Amino acid sequence: MFAIAVTLLVLDIGVSANAGQHLLHSVVGLWPSYLAYAASFSTIGAAWLAHNAITEYLERADAAFVRLNLLLLLLVSFLPFPTRLVAQYIHQDSAERVAVTFYGICFMLTSTFLLVLWRYALRAHLVRPDAGDEEIGLLTDRLTPGLLGYLVLIVSGIFLPIIAVVGYLAVALYYIIPFRRLSAGIFPLRLHKKRVKPQDASRRP
Amino acid sequence: MFAIAVTLLVLDIGVSANAGQHLLHSVVGLWPSYLAYAASFSTIGAAWLAHNAITEYLERADAAFVRLNLLLLLLVSFLPFPTRLVAQYIHQDSAERVAVTFYGICFMLTSTFLLVLWRYALRAHLVRPDAGDEEIGLLTDRLTPGLLGYLVLIVSGIFLPIIAVVGYLAVALYYIIPFRRLSAGIFPLRLHKKRVKPQDASRRP
Amino acid sequence: MFAIAVTLLVLDIGVSANAGQHLLHSVVGLWPSYLAYAASFSTIGAAWLAHNAITEYLERADAAFVRLNLLLLLLVSFLPFPTRLVAQYIHQDSAERVAVTFYGICFMLTSTFLLVLWRYALRAHLVRPDAGDEEIGLLTDRLTPGLLGYLVLIVSGIFLPIIAVVGYLAVALYYIIPFRRLSAGIFPLRLHKKRVKPQDASRRP
Amino acid sequence: MFAIAVTLLVLDIGVSANAGQHLLHSVVGLWPSYLAYAASFSTIGAAWLAHNAITEYLERADAAFVRLNLLLLLLVSFLPFPTRLVAQYIHQDSAERVAVTFYGICFMLTSTFLLVLWRYALRAHLVRPDAGDEEIGLLTDRLTPGLLGYLVLIVSGIFLPIIAVVGYLAVALYYIIPFRRLSAGIFPLRLHKKRVKPQDASRRP
Repeated sequence: MFAIAVTLLVLDIGVSANAGQHLLHSVVGLWPSYLAYAASFSTIGAAWLAHNAITEYLERADAAFVRLNLLLLLLVSFLPFPTRLVAQYIHQDSAERVAVTFYGICFMLTSTFLLVLWRYALRAHLVRPDAGDEEIGLLTDRLTPGLLGYLVLIVSGIFLPIIAVVGYLAVALYYIIPFRRLSAGIFPLRLHKKRVKPQDASRRP
Repeated sequence: MFAIAVTLLVLDIGVSANAGQHLLHSVVGLWPSYLAYAASFSTIGAAWLAHNAITEYLERADAAFVRLNLLLLLLVSFLPFPTRLVAQYIHQDSAERVAVTFYGICFMLTSTFLLVLWRYALRAHLVRPDAGDEEIGLLTDRLTPGLLGYLVLIVSGIFLPIIAVVGYLAVALYYIIPFRRLSAGIFPLRLHKKRVKPQDASRRP
Repeated sequence: MFAIAVTLLVLDIGVSANAGQHLLHSVVGLWPSYLAYAASFSTIGAAWLAHNAITEYLERADAAFVRLNLLLLLLVSFLPFPTRLVAQYIHQDSAERVAVTFYGICFMLTSTFLLVLWRYALRAHLVRPDAGDEEIGLLTDRLTPGLLGYLVLIVSGIFLPIIAVVGYLAVALYYIIPFRRLSAGIFPLRLHKKRVKPQDASRRP
Repeated sequence: MFAIAVTLLVLDIGVSANAGQHLLHSVVGLWPSYLAYAASFSTIGAAWLAHNAITEYLERADAAFVRLNLLLLLLVSFLPFPTRLVAQYIHQDSAERVAVTFYGICFMLTSTFLLVLWRYALRAHLVRPDAGDEEIGLLTDRLTPGLLGYLVLIVSGIFLPIIAVVGYLAVALYYIIPFRRLSAGIFPLRLHKKRVKPQDASRRP
């Protein structure tokens, strides 16, 4: 689902039909599309990694978790739409503020749902008992501060829309990068799900 | 397949090309699109959960089951089309009745096929012998009453199209939520198929 | 890949933007789209089942098999395009002949590649030694006669385009249905790849 | 992800709305679309095989590898856009040079990232210790020379755009074909991930 949403983003990048005359100019002029593409790709990618980290720590799930999870998937599947709006309207003065604010709110909701999902899993004792307290705390710390960042960016997006999009990209990269301390060996191989899990491999010998 | 159909739904949400002037108004004015998106997402999500529940109880399958299953997938893959119609025509008086009725009929057919699939599996003795009678009865009870709900909604959709779309969303949520009593631990982890099954996990110690 | 191609087909069904006035008429008038959708869905579905049957009998694969397999996937991924052409031009006299002939040629090529893939696997001794001769012969017999059917339909499509599309649907159904004798228990569960294989299950007790 | 990107390519092939009159001419006239489709399909297919080969040799992964991998996926998901540009502008004199050059740069970047990913895995000792030096050297040799080929094609694409697209197709085929010497048995079954790995199978008896 994350893989599909992330791949659909490219469908919204396109030059207008009569751009043939000045195609170089058109392709370069699409940089807001590329920026929005990169920011959305990174945000969905970060949510993907975080979602994997959460389900990695789960031992079981209950009905409420399923519903929260479906809501999260609904939000993630929805993200190509605000991305398209930003790509389309970034150069139009009043419209770009609306598009970027809408974009930011969608990102903040996704981020909030990830945190809610994780906090619910903790409170309902769905997490594996063998998961270390330190690791659990680290994941909680990772998921929390982004919300404040999104709030700041949504407000600043009203005045400086393009800066805000760059900011969303930065927040996503912040989410993606320091997950390494949590479980460096898990994520990459998870992305193509074709091998035995590294943990299993290390247990073998 | 369910994951792909559900993610493609977002492609049908879009503002018209010259909406830049009043983008806030346009984005808010798209609420029928969002409503249709949420109703279709939930309906496909409910069908996904129900389909998983059915295949979970299967021990084997036969040729007729395969054909019924393909027909169900054909229907599910088709759902983005009526969703698009509802999103496009909800504000046009005569058209919205047609769109919403067509939408409801497609949902009812999907729901009917799920029930037919399950009843066929029961009659052809494809279900695992270790599945408890109570659980089986519960799944049958879950799949049946929705059909009546869809019939009522299709008729009321002729007079109150928007109310009917809200109704379809409600029916889907009804399907999604009380599955918890059946097999709470199974569904959520099934949605991303990256972990061992909870049952297997519990057998280990 | 098959699942994605099959789900993308729905994107090509759509009423024109100003159909609101006579939506019922428009939706009913789309029957060639529905027919092309059903024929393509069934053809890709049949190719999916046949491809699964072939890989099911494989013990290993070599470089030539990989290349043939990639070519087959290229063809299958391409099928939404001729489907779109048929849906668009079925009512336009000269265009519909071109569209339906193109459609038939693509189907025949797909079918030919499946046969070539299977014959290559047999000749290069890639098939599992424990596969019975009878089963192997049955699969060969399944894959062969369709080619003649496609040839007849391509020719008749020049004179009776719509009849030919119905014929393509019939050929696909012919492919889908009698696979039961081969390995009835394998296909359906293969479609969602979330359970142990039925054969494994039967070996356990 | 590779499977989705490759299947989305077909969405960008299409005749103009008023092509009904001379559909045969239109369908034949789309040959640049087919060529771009084949070149992109083969390039993504080659990247898919190479990516599988890389992850096949990995024992574990670290945070930097994950980030490089995400960047590679971002690039691969982006490829349908330059493909669309080439398909659209191949017949327009100045535009086709821009489109083909952009196309080539994207391909070269993808190819570079595959090499960077592999070299990083080697340097960071992420590769399985049981992988033979010869195999590792062979994979490195495979991934390297394509870059020079892409550079030559990008330059020649400024003068002979269509020849360059044919060249990109040839480079992709070059990547796809001689992987056989590396691990002939691995790739094809990897493409549909439904069977036990051939290596495991050979270990059994």
